[in-house]
Amino acid sequence: MSRNQRPKIDEYPEYLFIILHFPIFDKQVGRLNAGELDLFIGPDYIITLPNQPLKPVEYLFERCRTNEEVREQLFSKGTGYLLYQIVDQSFDYCFPMLRKIGNKLEQLEEDIFIGRGEEIVRDISNVKQEIINFRKTIRPQRSVLRDLERTKQRYMRAELEVYFDDIVDAVERIWDMLENDKEVVEALEDTNESVISHRVNDILRVLTSISVIVLPLTFIASLWGMNVGVPGEGDHTAFWIITGVMIAMLVGMVTYFRRRGWL
Amino acid sequence: MSRNQRPKIDEYPEYLFIILHFPIFDKQVGRLNAGELDLFIGPDYIITLPNQPLKPVEYLFERCRTNEEVREQLFSKGTGYLLYQIVDQSFDYCFPMLRKIGNKLEQLEEDIFIGRGEEIVRDISNVKQEIINFRKTIRPQRSVLRDLERTKQRYMRAELEVYFDDIVDAVERIWDMLENDKEVVEALEDTNESVISHRVNDILRVLTSISVIVLPLTFIASLWGMNVGVPGEGDHTAFWIITGVMIAMLVGMVTYFRRRGWL
Amino acid sequence: MSRNQRPKIDEYPEYLFIILHFPIFDKQVGRLNAGELDLFIGPDYIITLPNQPLKPVEYLFERCRTNEEVREQLFSKGTGYLLYQIVDQSFDYCFPMLRKIGNKLEQLEEDIFIGRGEEIVRDISNVKQEIINFRKTIRPQRSVLRDLERTKQRYMRAELEVYFDDIVDAVERIWDMLENDKEVVEALEDTNESVISHRVNDILRVLTSISVIVLPLTFIASLWGMNVGVPGEGDHTAFWIITGVMIAMLVGMVTYFRRRGWL
Amino acid sequence: MSRNQRPKIDEYPEYLFIILHFPIFDKQVGRLNAGELDLFIGPDYIITLPNQPLKPVEYLFERCRTNEEVREQLFSKGTGYLLYQIVDQSFDYCFPMLRKIGNKLEQLEEDIFIGRGEEIVRDISNVKQEIINFRKTIRPQRSVLRDLERTKQRYMRAELEVYFDDIVDAVERIWDMLENDKEVVEALEDTNESVISHRVNDILRVLTSISVIVLPLTFIASLWGMNVGVPGEGDHTAFWIITGVMIAMLVGMVTYFRRRGWL
Amino acid sequence: MSRNQRPKIDEYPEYLFIILHFPIFDKQVGRLNAGELDLFIGPDYIITLPNQPLKPVEYLFERCRTNEEVREQLFSKGTGYLLYQIVDQSFDYCFPMLRKIGNKLEQLEEDIFIGRGEEIVRDISNVKQEIINFRKTIRPQRSVLRDLERTKQRYMRAELEVYFDDIVDAVERIWDMLENDKEVVEALEDTNESVISHRVNDILRVLTSISVIVLPLTFIASLWGMNVGVPGEGDHTAFWIITGVMIAMLVGMVTYFRRRGWL
Repeated sequence: MSRNQRPKIDEYPEYLFIILHFPIFDKQVGRLNAGELDLFIGPDYIITLPNQPLKPVEYLFERCRTNEEVREQLFSKGTGYLLYQIVDQSFDYCFPMLRKIGNKLEQLEEDIFIGRGEEIVRDISNVKQEIINFRKTIRPQRSVLRDLERTKQRYMRAELEVYFDDIVDAVERIWDMLENDKEVVEALEDTNESVISHRVNDILRVLTSISVIVLPLTFIASLWGMNVGVPGEGDHTAFWIITGVMIAMLVGMVTYFRRRGWL
Repeated sequence: MSRNQRPKIDEYPEYLFIILHFPIFDKQVGRLNAGELDLFIGPDYIITLPNQPLKPVEYLFERCRTNEEVREQLFSKGTGYLLYQIVDQSFDYCFPMLRKIGNKLEQLEEDIFIGRGEEIVRDISNVKQEIINFRKTIRPQRSVLRDLERTKQRYMRAELEVYFDDIVDAVERIWDMLENDKEVVEALEDTNESVISHRVNDILRVLTSISVIVLPLTFIASLWGMNVGVPGEGDHTAFWIITGVMIAMLVGMVTYFRRRGWL
Repeated sequence: MSRNQRPKIDEYPEYLFIILHFPIFDKQVGRLNAGELDLFIGPDYIITLPNQPLKPVEYLFERCRTNEEVREQLFSKGTGYLLYQIVDQSFDYCFPMLRKIGNKLEQLEEDIFIGRGEEIVRDISNVKQEIINFRKTIRPQRSVLRDLERTKQRYMRAELEVYFDDIVDAVERIWDMLENDKEVVEALEDTNESVISHRVNDILRVLTSISVIVLPLTFIASLWGMNVGVPGEGDHTAFWIITGVMIAMLVGMVTYFRRRGWL
Repeated sequence: MSRNQRPKIDEYPEYLFIILHFPIFDKQVGRLNAGELDLFIGPDYIITLPNQPLKPVEYLFERCRTNEEVREQLFSKGTGYLLYQIVDQSFDYCFPMLRKIGNKLEQLEEDIFIGRGEEIVRDISNVKQEIINFRKTIRPQRSVLRDLERTKQRYMRAELEVYFDDIVDAVERIWDMLENDKEVVEALEDTNESVISHRVNDILRVLTSISVIVLPLTFIASLWGMNVGVPGEGDHTAFWIITGVMIAMLVGMVTYFRRRGWL
Repeated sequence: MSRNQRPKIDEYPEYLFIILHFPIFDKQVGRLNAGELDLFIGPDYIITLPNQPLKPVEYLFERCRTNEEVREQLFSKGTGYLLYQIVDQSFDYCFPMLRKIGNKLEQLEEDIFIGRGEEIVRDISNVKQEIINFRKTIRPQRSVLRDLERTKQRYMRAELEVYFDDIVDAVERIWDMLENDKEVVEALEDTNESVISHRVNDILRVLTSISVIVLPLTFIASLWGMNVGVPGEGDHTAFWIITGVMIAMLVGMVTYFRRRGWL
C-alpha cells in the first residue's frame, strides 16, 4: 500500500475500505500535516490502520479497554455505529485547532496597527500556510463523506442515519470556517501591506520636509563660509541679519509644509 | 446541544427543528457576530430558543404581549404564518445594517482622496472584516431557506406560499448586496493603495529635486570654504561671480526638472 | 410596496408582475444608480410604474401620444409585443452607456503612460465603481429574463418568440461586455501600479546617484575647511590638486553608475 | 442588422443563420479586434457576410476561383462540408496569433530580470490587453460551436461528424491556451512588481548606507570649521588626529553595514 | 497529424485512439514541457507513438525486451492491462517531479526571511511557471481519463476495472497537489512582497532618523563657519558651549525617535 493515498471509499463485496485524512499538528516542525487513517469495515469487524498515532482514536480505544460500560455501549450497536464514533471523534478534534487559528487571526488583527515589524509578516505567513494545509487535508474529504453517507446503510441500522448527517455537517462546518479564515487572513495581509505603505509615506514626508528645509539653509551658510570677500565680512550685524533671514525662510517653509499636510 | 451549530433544517415525524443565524452588532467589541436562533415547529406550537437576545424576535413577542389585536392576527393563521413572521422580521433587521455599511463605503470613497492618513486603512479594514463576518453568517443560510421553502407545506396553508418566496427573496437580496459591498470594499482598498503610491511618488520627486539642486551648490560653496589658497581669495568680486554661476546652475536645473515634470 | 425590490417575475392567475432594474446615470452625483420599473401585464392591459423617470419608456409613450401610426403598430399586436418593446428599448439604452465606459477605458490606457498624476487614480477608481454598479444592476436581471422567456407565451402570439430571444441576447451581450470591462479596468489598475513603481524606482536611482557622488566630495571639501592646520594651508596649488582629485572621483563614480545602469 | 451581434446560431425552417467572431489583428492601432462573419446555410447554398475582410475566408474562395480541383472537392460534399471548411480554416488562423503571444511572453520572462525599465511595463500591459481581447472574442463562441455540433446533422452526411468534433476541439484548445497565457501574464506581472520592489530596496540600502556614513563625518568636519576657538586651532597634528578618528569611524560603520548585509 | 493535439480519446469501430500528455523536464532550457503520447489500442495490439522519448514508457518496454517473465506478465492479460500499465507508469513518474516542487517551495519558505535578495524573486517566479506548465499539461487530461474509464470495458476484463480507478485517482491526486502548490507559491509571493516592504520601511526609518538628526546639527556648525562676525568668534569656550547644545539636541532627538520606535 503506497505511503499516502487520497481519501476515498472503495466498496468490496464483503467489506468497505475507507481512507480518511485528519490534520495533525506536528509540534517539532511547527506545521500541520495530514495523518492518514485506513479503515476496513465488515459486517462484524472494524480494523483501523492509522499511519501515525491519532490521539482521538487512541483515546477512544483506551476508554474501551479500561471501561467495561463504554465498550458495551460502543460495540453493541454494530460496526456502523463504531465507525461513526471513530470518524466523529476524529473530526471533533479539528475544532480546537480551528479555534486556535481563529484566536491567532484576532491577535494579528490587533497587532497590525501596533506595528510589531517584520515578525508580523512571518506570523501572517505562518497562519496562512497553516490554513492552506488544513484546507488541503479537508478538501478531498468532503466528497468521501458524502459517498459514505450514501453507502453506510449496509452495516448500519436505519436509525443511525441521523448520526452520519452529523458528521457531514461537522465537515461542512469545518470547511466553512476554513473558507472564512482564508478570507480573513487574506484581508489581514492586504491591510498589513496598506499599513506599511502608509508608514513609508509618513516617514518619507518627514524626511523630505527636513531635507527641503535644512539643505537650502545649510547651503546659504556655506556660501558665507567661502574664503572670498563675502558681503559683511567680519561684521557682527551681518550674522544676525543672515540668521534672521534664515529664520524667516524656516518659518515660511514650515508653514507651507503644514498647509500641505506634510508635517 | 453544542454551543454554535451550522444553520440547518431537520425534519422529525412530529416537528421541524430549524437553526438560523442572524448578524448581531456587538457594540462593546465593535464587530458583527452571529446570533443563533433555534426553532421547534409543531402543528400547533412554535418554540424559539435564541442563543442571545435577538431584538426583532423580542420586539415581535413584546407586541403580542401588549397588543391583543396583533396577537390575534399572528396566532390565527397557524404556526407556518408565525414562523414566517419571525424569520421575516429577523432578516428585515439586516437591511439597516447593510445601509450602514453602504454609507461607510460611500464615506470612505470620498475620504480616500482627502488623505486622512493611517486611520483610513483602519476604517477600510474594519468595514472589510464586517462584510466578511456578515457573509459568513448569511452564506450557509441560503440553502437552508431554500430547504425551508420546500418543506414548509406541512404546517402551512397553501396561500402562504407567496410569503415564503418573500423571505428567500430577501436573503438573496442581502447576499447580492454583500457580494456587491465586497467588490466595492476591495476596489476601495486597491484605490487607496494607488493613492498612497502616487503620494510616495510625488514626495520623492520633491525630495529628489531639492537634493539634486542644493547638494551640488553646497559642494561648490564648501570647495571655496577650504583653508587653502582658493582662487579669488578675499576678493569681493569673486563672491558675486560664484553666486552668479550658482544662480545660473539653479535656474538651469529647475528648468530641467520642470520639463521632466518633477517640480 | 417596499422602495427597492430585487428584479423578479411573479405569476398570478390573472396577470404577471415584473420588476426590472435599469442603470441610470445620475448627473448630479456623477454615478450610476439603478432605476426600478414595475410592470403589471394582463391579457389586455399593461401598467408601468417606474420608480424614477426612465427616458426610453417615456420616449416610447411620448411617440405613442403624438404619432397615431406608432400607437397603432405597438398596440395592435397584443400586450406581449408592447412588453417586448418597452423592455427592449430600455435595454438598448444601456449600449451608449457601455460605449462611454469603453471610451473612458481606452482613454485611460493611453493616459497611464503619460503620467497625469493622482487624477488618473481617481479616474480609474470612478470607472471601476461605475462598472461595479452597472454589474450590480444587470446581474440579477439575467435569471429574470430567462424566466420571462419561459412564461411569455401567455399573452403573446408564438411568432413573437424570436423577439424575446433578442432581449435575452441583448442582456447577455451587456453582461459579457461588463465582464470584459471589469477585466480591462483591473488590468489598467495593475499597469498603473507598475508604472508608478517604475517611476519611484527611476527617481530613487537619480537621488541615490547624486547623493552618493556629491556627499563624499562635500565631506572632503569640509575636511579642508576645518580651522586646524590643514595640509597645503593657504597654498594655491593645493586647491587645484584637491579639485583634480575630486574631479577624478566624480568621473570614476559617474562611470561606475553608468555601468550599473543607474544614470 | 445591428452592427455587432453576439455569436449565435438561429435555426429557421429553411436555413441556419450563424454569427461567428474571429480575432483580427488591426495593424494600424496595434490591437486585436473581433471580426464578424455571418453565415446563411441552406440545403444547397451558403452565404457568407463578413463584417470586414477575413483573410482565411477570402483565401479559401480565392483558391476555389482559381483552382478547378479545389472547387470540385469543396462543393461536392454538400453545404455542411463547406461550412466545416470555412469555420475550420478561420479558427486555424488563430494558432499563429497564439504562437506570437506565446513568444512575446517567453521574451518578457527573460527581459524582466534584465531590467529594461518602463518599457517592460508597457509590453506586459499590451500583451495582457491582447489576451483579454482574444478571450472576449473566443469566449461566447464555445457554446455556439457546441450548439452547431448538435444541429449540424441537417445538411450534412453523418460521416462528416468527426470533422466537426475537430472544430470544437480546436476552439477548446484555443481557449485552454488563452487560459494558460492569462495565468502566465499575470505571473509575469507579479514577478515584475517583485523585481522592482527588490531594486528599490537595493537602491535604498546604498543610499542609506552612504548617507549614514558620510553625513556624520561631514558634520564633524564642519564642527571644526566653525570660526570659534576650536581645539587644536591651526595645529597640523590636529588635522591628522581628526582624520584618523574619521577613518576609524568610517571603517567601523562600513564593517557594521557589511554585517547587516546592506553594502 | 498535427504536431501537438489536445489530449482526447476517439472511439473507432475497430480501435481506440488516445492522446495523452505527460510533463517532461527539459534540462537544457530548465522548464517543464508537455510530451505527447499517442496510442492505438485494438483487441490484440497496442501501438505507442510518443512525440519525444518518454522515460517510463521506454523503461517498461526495455524490461519487456530483457525479461521474459515481465513480458509474459504484461502481455498475458490483454491490451487493456498493458494500456493500464503504460498509463499508470507514466503518471507515477509525475510524483517525483511534484516532490521536487514541494521541496523547492519549502526551501523558499525558509529563504524568504533570510533575505537572499533578487535571486529569490527569480526562484519563486521559476517555480510558479513550472506549476503553471504542469497544470497546463494535467488539466485537459482529467476529463480524458474519466472518458477512458467509461470506454475501457471493450478490450478489458471486468476485474481490471479497479486498476483504472487507480489511474483516475492518481491524476486527481496530482491535480490536488498542483492546486495546493499553486496556493502555496502565491502565498509565498505575497509574503515575499510583504517582507521587502517591511525592509524598505526599516531602511527608510534609519535613513530618516540619521538625516533628521545630523542635518540640522551640520547646519548650525556651518552657521558658525560663516566668515562674518559670529558670536564668540575665536573664543574657545564658545566651541564647548555650541558642542554642548548640539549634544543636548542629539540626545533629545534620539530619545524622541526611540519613543516613536524609529531607531
